[in-house]
Amino acid sequence: METKRGIFITFEGPDGSGKTTQIRLLENELLSRGERVVLTREPGGTPISEAIRRLLLDPANKEMDAVTEALLYAASRAQHVAEKIRPALEAGAIVLCDRFMDSSIAYQGYGRGLGDDVRVINEFAVQGTLPDITFFMNLPAAAGKRRAEERADLDRLEREGTSFHEAVYEGYLQIARRCADRYVWIDASQSIEEIAARILREYDAYVLARTDDK
Amino acid sequence: METKRGIFITFEGPDGSGKTTQIRLLENELLSRGERVVLTREPGGTPISEAIRRLLLDPANKEMDAVTEALLYAASRAQHVAEKIRPALEAGAIVLCDRFMDSSIAYQGYGRGLGDDVRVINEFAVQGTLPDITFFMNLPAAAGKRRAEERADLDRLEREGTSFHEAVYEGYLQIARRCADRYVWIDASQSIEEIAARILREYDAYVLARTDDK
Repeated sequence: METKRGIFITFEGPDGSGKTTQIRLLENELLSRGERVVLTREPGGTPISEAIRRLLLDPANKEMDAVTEALLYAASRAQHVAEKIRPALEAGAIVLCDRFMDSSIAYQGYGRGLGDDVRVINEFAVQGTLPDITFFMNLPAAAGKRRAEERADLDRLEREGTSFHEAVYEGYLQIARRCADRYVWIDASQSIEEIAARILREYDAYVLARTDDK
Repeated sequence: METKRGIFITFEGPDGSGKTTQIRLLENELLSRGERVVLTREPGGTPISEAIRRLLLDPANKEMDAVTEALLYAASRAQHVAEKIRPALEAGAIVLCDRFMDSSIAYQGYGRGLGDDVRVINEFAVQGTLPDITFFMNLPAAAGKRRAEERADLDRLEREGTSFHEAVYEGYLQIARRCADRYVWIDASQSIEEIAARILREYDAYVLARTDDK
């Protein structure tokens, strides 16, 4: 008997937008329905991904080039996918991942100005294991609120008069446009219950559509 | 006064084809002419590149996926370029590098079957710092001789009846075709003196052509 491929769901959006809370609520709901759920976040608990992440975070490596950094994040993700996410999906599980490749595209590609190459190296890293659904927790006020405190951290973007977080937000908008079939834009200013209900409706609609396709 | 950009020269070809000997001979000749020469090879002696290389070579990381591996090699190269090769070229030096991105394209892209994506991630890694001249030390007999001993190591290539080293050789042929303006194909079965003289002729011709372009 062939196992049906699982469902890969990612959550994106700024810190403080409620991603973790909503992932837990969805996990609980799916578990109560008897689904097999794998909850993960990068570096995903694989020893190789964690060793790569230690290199990235080691303050001794302050000479690290932004290009090196982007390739290391992609390498860590490649291992997370190969060792954990893809096997779980092949075993039929529902995988919930707190941030995934869209974070790199938005933060490094748009925010840091590395451009579309970040998407290309991440598509290589995941080798076709793309999310089926991505919930973007939208908190548009956050971009403006953080603008002032980010000023010290900016380089070329600042000189262009664009804040880092505005560029990241623009990145997510572009990704959502390009990947409209998997993107669900959530108004994160709603109540926890309203958001959870919306996520569940979207999830159920996806499963129904997938069944119809068969 | 603006410093003229240096010259970036790479050496490619199978182990045992005489690359190291020829690099030393060219270095000595250029030094005797009063040129500033930087001799390097990957990981290039930068602490970050070496830390990445230790991850790649650590036997504890036997679960490493081939995609992770390719991204880590590219990350190590990115740092080598950013911290050592590009600054040397900007300071006007002649950089001689024992193997560079073409090795990854040939061995991982063609040999291991990861395809053209390896070229794409390496072009991202080097950010436009491409060799001006690449000397390929051609030893066609090596491919056949190694074929038998490589058998145990093969996967998809073996099933297709192609040896790993034949695929690598085909990779170099393709790169040389695509990058005909920088590739010099050297018959490595000639004497050391004959090869050194040929390399010097090609180098001098390149410098002359570059001066004429001005």
